[in-house]
Parts: sequence; C-alpha cells; structure tokens
Amino acid sequence: MMEHTEGGNRVIIEGVSPEIDGGRFPIKRIIGDKVVVEADIFTDGHDVLSVALLYRKEGDPNWIEIPMEFLANDRWRGSFVVSELGQYQYTLTAWVDRFKTWQQNLAKKVEAKQDVSVDFLEGAQLIEEAIMQPTKRDTKTMQDWVASLHSSQVSASAKAKLVLGDRVTAVMTRYPVRRSVATYPRELTVVVDREKARFSTWYEMFPRSCASGSSRHGTFEDCEERLSYIAEMGFDVLYFPPIHPIGQTSRKGKNNDPVAKADDPGTPWAIGSEEGGHKAVHPQLGTLDDFRRFIDKAREYGLEVALDIAFQCSPDHPYVKEHPEWFRWRPDGTVQYAENPPKKYQDIYPLEFETESWQELWEELKSVILFWIEQGVRIFRVDNPHTKPFAFWEWLISEVKKDCPEVIFLAEAFTRPKIMYLLAKLGFTQSYTYFTWRNIKWELTQYFTELTQTDVREFFRPNLWPNTPDILSDYLRDGGRPAFITRLVLAATLGANYGIYGPAFELCENRRKDKESEEYLNSEKYELKQWNIKSRNSLKDFITRVNGIRRENPALQSDLSLCFHPVDNDQLICFSKRTEDLSSLILVVVNLDYRYKQSGWIELSLEEVGLDNNRPYEVSDLLTDVTYRWQGSRNYVELDPRKIPAHIFRINRGIAKSKN
Amino acid sequence: MMEHTEGGNRVIIEGVSPEIDGGRFPIKRIIGDKVVVEADIFTDGHDVLSVALLYRKEGDPNWIEIPMEFLANDRWRGSFVVSELGQYQYTLTAWVDRFKTWQQNLAKKVEAKQDVSVDFLEGAQLIEEAIMQPTKRDTKTMQDWVASLHSSQVSASAKAKLVLGDRVTAVMTRYPVRRSVATYPRELTVVVDREKARFSTWYEMFPRSCASGSSRHGTFEDCEERLSYIAEMGFDVLYFPPIHPIGQTSRKGKNNDPVAKADDPGTPWAIGSEEGGHKAVHPQLGTLDDFRRFIDKAREYGLEVALDIAFQCSPDHPYVKEHPEWFRWRPDGTVQYAENPPKKYQDIYPLEFETESWQELWEELKSVILFWIEQGVRIFRVDNPHTKPFAFWEWLISEVKKDCPEVIFLAEAFTRPKIMYLLAKLGFTQSYTYFTWRNIKWELTQYFTELTQTDVREFFRPNLWPNTPDILSDYLRDGGRPAFITRLVLAATLGANYGIYGPAFELCENRRKDKESEEYLNSEKYELKQWNIKSRNSLKDFITRVNGIRRENPALQSDLSLCFHPVDNDQLICFSKRTEDLSSLILVVVNLDYRYKQSGWIELSLEEVGLDNNRPYEVSDLLTDVTYRWQGSRNYVELDPRKIPAHIFRINRGIAKSKN
Repeated sequence: MMEHTEGGNRVIIEGVSPEIDGGRFPIKRIIGDKVVVEADIFTDGHDVLSVALLYRKEGDPNWIEIPMEFLANDRWRGSFVVSELGQYQYTLTAWVDRFKTWQQNLAKKVEAKQDVSVDFLEGAQLIEEAIMQPTKRDTKTMQDWVASLHSSQVSASAKAKLVLGDRVTAVMTRYPVRRSVATYPRELTVVVDREKARFSTWYEMFPRSCASGSSRHGTFEDCEERLSYIAEMGFDVLYFPPIHPIGQTSRKGKNNDPVAKADDPGTPWAIGSEEGGHKAVHPQLGTLDDFRRFIDKAREYGLEVALDIAFQCSPDHPYVKEHPEWFRWRPDGTVQYAENPPKKYQDIYPLEFETESWQELWEELKSVILFWIEQGVRIFRVDNPHTKPFAFWEWLISEVKKDCPEVIFLAEAFTRPKIMYLLAKLGFTQSYTYFTWRNIKWELTQYFTELTQTDVREFFRPNLWPNTPDILSDYLRDGGRPAFITRLVLAATLGANYGIYGPAFELCENRRKDKESEEYLNSEKYELKQWNIKSRNSLKDFITRVNGIRRENPALQSDLSLCFHPVDNDQLICFSKRTEDLSSLILVVVNLDYRYKQSGWIELSLEEVGLDNNRPYEVSDLLTDVTYRWQGSRNYVELDPRKIPAHIFRINRGIAKSKN
Repeated sequence: MMEHTEGGNRVIIEGVSPEIDGGRFPIKRIIGDKVVVEADIFTDGHDVLSVALLYRKEGDPNWIEIPMEFLANDRWRGSFVVSELGQYQYTLTAWVDRFKTWQQNLAKKVEAKQDVSVDFLEGAQLIEEAIMQPTKRDTKTMQDWVASLHSSQVSASAKAKLVLGDRVTAVMTRYPVRRSVATYPRELTVVVDREKARFSTWYEMFPRSCASGSSRHGTFEDCEERLSYIAEMGFDVLYFPPIHPIGQTSRKGKNNDPVAKADDPGTPWAIGSEEGGHKAVHPQLGTLDDFRRFIDKAREYGLEVALDIAFQCSPDHPYVKEHPEWFRWRPDGTVQYAENPPKKYQDIYPLEFETESWQELWEELKSVILFWIEQGVRIFRVDNPHTKPFAFWEWLISEVKKDCPEVIFLAEAFTRPKIMYLLAKLGFTQSYTYFTWRNIKWELTQYFTELTQTDVREFFRPNLWPNTPDILSDYLRDGGRPAFITRLVLAATLGANYGIYGPAFELCENRRKDKESEEYLNSEKYELKQWNIKSRNSLKDFITRVNGIRRENPALQSDLSLCFHPVDNDQLICFSKRTEDLSSLILVVVNLDYRYKQSGWIELSLEEVGLDNNRPYEVSDLLTDVTYRWQGSRNYVELDPRKIPAHIFRINRGIAKSKN
C-alpha cells in the first residue's frame, strides 16, 4: 500500500468562495441560512478526485463532512445549513480516489473490448486495502468481491458488472482509501445572526421630545404613550439617541450656539455629568427602573429598543476625574477637546485610545455594553466608530457576542468606503450607507449593485436612512413631500434594513439651518421639540402601508436578490427582489423627479422570473391596490409626483397562468 | 512620550497589488522593470499617515525604504526598479505621523486666525521627541526650534512660518517618530528574468531531418548548415525535440503504427535505450561534444538552443533496471505503461511520482536539468508538466534558478485553464496557450484580454504557437497559405513570445493523417523528413519581414499594452501595442477569413495614443511599405486573403504633426 508522502501531495484547493481577504474576516449569515461553498480543486494527471466540505459549530471538536459536487472547469460546490446563533467554521478536504479512477478507466477499457484481466487484479488490491477500515459485515462482503475478482470461475463480464455496479461503488465510497489528501490550510468563519440582522425597520426618536402637547422635558413614561403610534406604522426597532446625563461645561445652545441659555438641554451626545456617565440615565428622562419598564412595554408592541453608543465624554463626565489617563492632556494642563480644525467641539472630550492604560479603557467600555445588555438592550447603534481604533471594535464585538450572539451592532460610520467596509468586516452587524446622498438612477444602480451583487454582500448589511438628526439632504429640502415619499419607498424596498428619524420624517420637516451644512433649522439635537404627530399632512398612513408591504412580502426581507431593470427614462428607476422559489416577487418603479410626471417603458427579462413571453400576467400595485394586465417584456409606466411617485408591484405568476 | 502599544495598533494595510493568491506566489518581471505597488492604507480618525514601500534583493538583510505617494480613496502608490536577475522581496509599512498631523491642523487654525499658543508647545514636544535620533548637527538645529517655540520673544506668525516651512518638514521627515507602526505581514516576491523571458522568437525543428538533400539520419553537423536559414528568418531560439537515445521495445512505426519496421527511427519522446537515458545523446545525431559545439555555433548566429524535457521513459531506459521503484508495477509483474483509456502508449513508461523513493527521483530529475545546463543549455521546453506533481515543479524550478536565474522554462501544458495558470504561478517562465485553437474575433479578444489585462499578466507569459508537431489545426488545414499568413501575423503580434514548428510551417504543410485527430499525415514524430526549404512557395521571406518588424518596433516586444479596437466587420480584428512613452506605436489589422476579401471601418480612440482628432496622421504598413494618410477616429481598411490578409501599421505621430 502506497503511503502518503510529502512528495505525493498532489491535490490543489484554491479559489475558495466565500472567503473574505484570505480568510482574515468571517462571512455573515442568518440563522437557518444555507452556506454554499465553492472551490477550484484539481490534481495533476487524470486521476479522479473526491472532495468534501467540512463544517462545525464553534467549540465542537468534530467536523461534519459533506461530499461536494463537481460543477465544471475544476469547480466544486457543497453547502450546509447554520441552525444556531454564534460562529461556525468551514474548510475543505480532497483526495485522489484511486478506486474511482480505476473504475473509470476499467469502464472505458471494457467499452473498447480490451483485455482487462490484470485490471481486475488491481481492483482486488484496491478493495483489499479498503478492508482495513470497515465493519465486520462489510469485511465479509468485500472479501467475497476480492475472491470473485481472483476467481477463474467468474467471467470477465460478470466481474466488470460487479465492480462497476452501485453496490461496490457505495461500499467503496463508505471506506475511501485517501491518497494525497489535501486539506485547505484555512478554517473560515461564519457569524450567524438572528433574523433582525437582515430585516429590520427602525424609528429614531428623541425621548425628551415626547411630552405630547407640552413644552416640558419628555420622560420614558411619555414615550410609552408614543409606542402605539410607532408600532402602528409598522416599525420594529425604536432607537434612542444617548439617554445619559448631559454635561454642563461648554454646553451648546439652540442651533449649536457656543453659549447655552440656562434652560437649554444640551446635546445628548455630550455624555456625562455629576449625575453619572455611560451607565447612568439622564434624571429628566426617568430612572433606570423606568427605562427597564419602558423596554418591556415596547416589547409588547413588537418594538425592540436600540441604544446609542457614543464613546466620548463631556468635560463633566466622571471619567475625567477618575481616569485622567484616558484623555489627552495639552501642555497647558487642559484636556484636548474634539476638533476638526477649524471646527471646535469644546463640549466633547474624545477618549485617548493611545493611552498606556488602553487595556483598562477597553474593559471599561465593554462593561458599558454589558451593563445595557443587563438592562435588556440587544441592539446598539454605534456613533462614529471610525474615530476609534479598528482593533478595539473587533475585540469588543467578538467579546460581547461570545455570550450574547443575538446582539446587533449598527455602525454609524459616514466615512470613506474602505473604512466603512472594514468596520463591517470587523464585526458590525449592520452599517449606515451612502444611500442618504444617492439620488440619481446611475449612482443608485451602481452603489446597490456593489452592495448586493459582489463579495460585499458577504459581510456588509446595509441599513438605509433617508434622514438622520444630522442630515437633512438637499433632495428632501428641495423636493418636499413628493421627495419624502420617493426616498421612503427607495429606502424601504432597496434595503431590507432601513430607518427614519421621526417625527421629522413623517412630518416632512425640510427646513435647513443654512445653505452650507445639512443641519436642520432648530435641530432637535440642541432643544426640546413639540411635534404635531396628528398633522393631516403626516406620511403616517403611507409609511404604515409601505411597512405592511415589507412585512407581507418576503422578497423585500433580504437584499441578495436585488436586480435593476432598464427603463428608457433616466428619471424612472426600476428594480425587483424575489425569494429563491419565486413565490414572492416584487417589482418597484420610482419616479426620481419630484417635480414632473415621468413615463417610460420598462424592460423585464421574463424568463428570469418564471414568466411566459406569450402570456399576459398581472401586476398588482400594493400602494394603490390597482392591478394591471401586462404582456411581454416591455411595459409602459407613468408616475406623477403630485399623486404617488412610485409603484410597488407584486407580480402574480400563478394567477396569470391559470387564467390562460 | 507615547509608547507604541498593541492597543495603539491603528493602521490598516490591505488590498495590496500586485499580490498573487495572498502572496502565495511571486509576480514576474524582467530585469530593468519598474515594480509599481499599490495598497489601501488608512487609520481611524483624521490623523495623517506616512507610508513606505520596502524592498530588497533576496539574501540582503536590509530593506530599502521608498516613500509612497497618496493617490485618492485611501490608495497609495510606490515603485522600485529590479536591476538584477533572481528574486526580490517587497512589503509595506505605515505609521501615524503625529508631526504632519499637527502641522496640518496648525495650518488650518492659523488660517482661521485661532489662538495657537498651546499648539506651539505641542509642536515643541514633538520636535523634542524626534531629537532622540538625529546627528549632532541636526540636534542643535532642532533644539533651537524648540527654544523658539517656547520663546515669548518670537511672534506667533514667525513661529507658524518656521514650523510650517520646508526646512522643518524636511528634517522632521528625516527623523520620523513612528507611532502605531503597521507592517504588512507578508513579504511578497518578484522573480526577475532576463529579457528573453518576455520577448523571444522560437523555431522548433527535428535535428534528424536536417540532412539536406539526403534521406539519411541528420546530425548536429547537418544542423549547423541550417543555422543561417533559421537566423536569417529572424528567430532567436532554436528548439529541439528530445535528442536522447530512443527505445526499441514497442517502438512506434510511421503514422503511429503500433509495429515499427526495422528502419523506423521511433519517436524522440520514447526516451532511453541501452545507449543511455536523459543525460545521453542519440548516437545517430552525434556526440555530446558535437552538441556542445553546435550550441556555440548557434550562438554565433544569435540563436539560443532550447531542449525538450520529457520526464518519461521508454521500456529500455536504464532507469527501469536501475530504479524499478520509480515505476508502477502491475499485479502481473509488468510495468504500467502510459495510457489514457482506451488509448495505449506501450512505448512510454511514466515515472511513478507516488513512489516512496520520491526524494531520490526528484534529485535525479534535477540532475538532468543541471547536466544540460552544464552543456550550455539555458532554455527548457517542458513536455506535459501537468501530468507530474505540482510540488515537484515548484521545487525543481526554484532549485535550478537559485544558481542559474537566467534559465527559462516553457510549460507545454495544453490542459484546463486553472492548471495552466497554476503551473505558471509555480515558476514556469513562459507557457503555451490556447491560441492554437482561437480563430474567431470574440474568442481572440476575450482570451488575450484575460491574459494581458488582468492579474494573469503578473505570472503567466504567453508563448503563441500556430502549429506544433502534435497539432495541425483545422484552420491551417482548411485555409492553406492565407491561413498560415494570418496565423503567423496574429502569433507574432499578439504574442511578444511566439514560435513555429518548421519547416512544416513555412512550407504550409497542411495534410492531416485523418479527420479525427490533429496529427500531421506522415508526422515527423515517427519518421525522417526531407523538407524542400528552398520551395518557391515558402513563407520564409514573409516570416523574415514579420520578425524584422518585431525586432525594430519595441511596442511588439511586450504584451502588457495590448488593446483591441472595434471594427464593424466580425472577420476583421484590430489591436494595438505601444511603449509607455508612445515612441513605438503599432496597429495590427487582420482578415480572419482566408477565403474572401473583407473590408470595414476601424475605430480608434485617438486621445489614448496621443493623436489629434482634427489633424491627419500617417500609418505605414510595415508589411508592404505603403503609407496611408488617415484622419479622425474612423478609418477604412480592406484586406484580401489572395494578397496579404494583414496590415502591421506603424502610426507616425511626429510626422503628421510636423506636416500640418
């Protein structure tokens, strides 16, 4: 029997997919997903290979082995299902299968009526080698086969029939003699998240502005009364800006005034005062008990509360006195405040991650997350993660998810593309995107194709926001109500994860502080607001419908199937999403021009969606409940911003077919 | 002073290019080439980075550091020149440059007329930190700067002018205080070859058919008389099939007849007889001394002799008796001969690389290469490398090139694409390609774009062959003389490396043995041939001209600039090559239809080649010496297979401009 030798190491495994940066980073999946793995696997010469995909739940010492299937051009494919939260590993193994090689050559020789008497003896040898492994019962069977192959009583055709038959193949596959075994040198990782990591509908709200009909500071109790309003609209995540005590020193006044008036509440992102830091609740909002009760209440409405994590301090934060070594001190004995010259943020002290006490700092920040997890929070929206070390986030998220794999981290990094992608690779569950500034057909098409149809989809889960407390875009400012509708439909259908900052959004608030910045006039960041959520002009009912469509149509609950379709008008954008089995198939058409009616012909590839070119089919607009009868790949659409500037069609495959 | 800490490791280096399979394989360059390296490099926050490219000749303990330049979107670029044969390493390093960061912020604050008195003290600290390193003279200077920054006698504007000035910048760049230094974890390799690896013109010939005007077995002496003929045509590599003793057992007769007649010479690839094996010369060709003399003679004609390395044995090879453990023995006591069922090659015994004595076998095969290197051979064409273990080739080539970096290995692997690419990655200097079977415009365009405009160019150097002793393509068989001209022009201009198997090629030999295979009728592999090289119909003069054009026009001596241009006729293909400085600019147009005249409009992007849309320019057909005056991007061409079915234009940029 030939031994495995270094020199006999003949099998190559390369081009493994999915694999992020040579295995440096994990891919992401949702519980219940199938992980499909492909690789280029080959050997020298003409020998036949057997290939297996290996996977295991993290911590399990044993690999589960799944045979891989040959596709073409040296490409192999296999898959496994991830059924638990946490991490899985996968890798590959392949070996020269001399018995299969021998069978294949034998079949060809038999076909060509060549003398194969010596081949039978070789086959007997191979079966004998395999006998080393099997159970008693199989041993007997295999010994019988060896005897038959040696026997002069058995005809050549009977021998050939035996060894090329299913039974021999099955047994020999069960006890493979693996020669030149190659194991892929890397163990690749899958992070498995819960469903909400892929499909979530966020509503951002300042709790302090929730005292309905009153100018006083809102409380968690006031927020409870707002829950039905938010839940009715169909949101499932309620995200609060920081709820911690706010500093007094250098507090900002209304409209970012460097000097605050006595009753100005300050920005919630200037965290920390005598009343506590990142583990405390701003007294005017209520107590920690109130907050916990609020979380429970929200859950009854199907709303999960997300907290803002902003790792920075006001000058009054307890850390400044207790841990001066966590800040950068200037030669004049002051602490370096945040600045982006010539801009100054005197109310914010950044943490100094280059401190020699970085380990203590990291541990303390981790304890902040664990503290809020203990209070019942499982979703964190992280403020400006790109201004803290990358290594810190990778450590923090992996530490937290070890015990709480259900935690979701949303990265609020509006920065350069490579940094946004790196943060996602390092562990952030979801990420803000450039959607906020992508308004034109080509840029939306290009950007969302990159996010959903390249390797980026393996690690980056987009969360789309048409507005935030920091960003009132030109498009919303200029376009008003039709623009708000357009951006809502785009966010809610391009992104399985999306959110709005309300009530500013549903009330179509579009007044800017000035021309230079994207800040709101009288921004809620610096003052209490009273929103008239019962306004006749509110988009509440429209949002309710859109979120209902998302809930009822699984096609809209993932981004992986996103596909753009040509329209002969640059102001009209058209795209579809579908489930793998085509049971849910949604086609969206949006008029990007908030001023004028636009019309055009959209072009669908009907085969792709299982439709017949020669039969009419129905498309039902879920926004208006109007159904159209279409035929062929080209169909006419017309959208008026003064009415509803979008269609969300459900394509009814079944109905059309049964009617014809 | 802040110490570098693990937690302070803030710089990311990724997306390094060129880098093959995560650094597993080297890139290839020619002596004198510039290696341009790019990478994505960034840190958290807004700090300024400094980035350096590090490189060294293999064996040199010291890295040479080259500053890299910022491009855009976090991309950096640097380059170095490889001036010696052998291997180089390169990697990258980057660090947070706190002084540059400070300068940049200071400049913005000064611009905004902010108070910067504390900033000056910070700058003084940074300069003091840097003083640790410099020479005495610089120490004094820097101490003076620190004093100035502290001095109340020096005005703020004078301080700002000082620290933002070129002198301070230069000195502080010389003594950088490197914080958060990141070094790319991989050292990447460049294999540097000689010029001929990129630009070579091959002529394959059976020496035994060189006895001009006689039917006797040719000798090396006869070959000497053929040298002027080959050299005049402009070839620079003369490649011989195996020159070793040929086995008698199971020798093949004419046209691959399983039974040889007494005077049949056998195929040169059935290597080994009582007269010796891979280190011996077939006695009928001459002696080893004759061969060495022939190599010298060839060199006088500018021809380098390439040998065929076919690691396989005839049944009579001395290895079979001396090293039975290097072969696979069957249960009936015979050696397994080569087969590809149902085909049998009884005259060939493959070596058994899965032998337990694989180390001795590898060493012996290496000694074969070293033996021929000692005789003066520096180019090896390796027969069927894909049927031997990949690890063997990687080891063999790297072992040989350690002492002889000038050796060139050409891989004759006509196999599946991933295997062809892997062999190139493992070390083969040049590779056969699918060119032999690519005849249609779209497939030529697609294939050569893949070879020259993707990462493949970093490791795979195509060598284009319109014919070989094994392959008379359908196109040549059916098209005859015009097809031979077309394929010659394509090979010689698409490929800076190309070769022909002659005299079959120049004599337009196009008779097939049968319809099923690509074998020549009366193939030279099995018999002596007498070629009438003086035939009036020979393509000798045409080949001479084409090879002359290659020699005189540097654009054709590399494949990296290859670019296809649209023609509104699928039978016409048009492409260009150019030097980086555009001093050599060649445009090729070929009629792929060997039957009919074809015409069409070609479309050039004039800006790309430095031409003016509004001025006429001249294109000189180097095949016919006819010059055309063209204007604009669209120009008409017409090519007749009964005349010359190709243009090789030199575009004269200078002349056209001076005439207008």
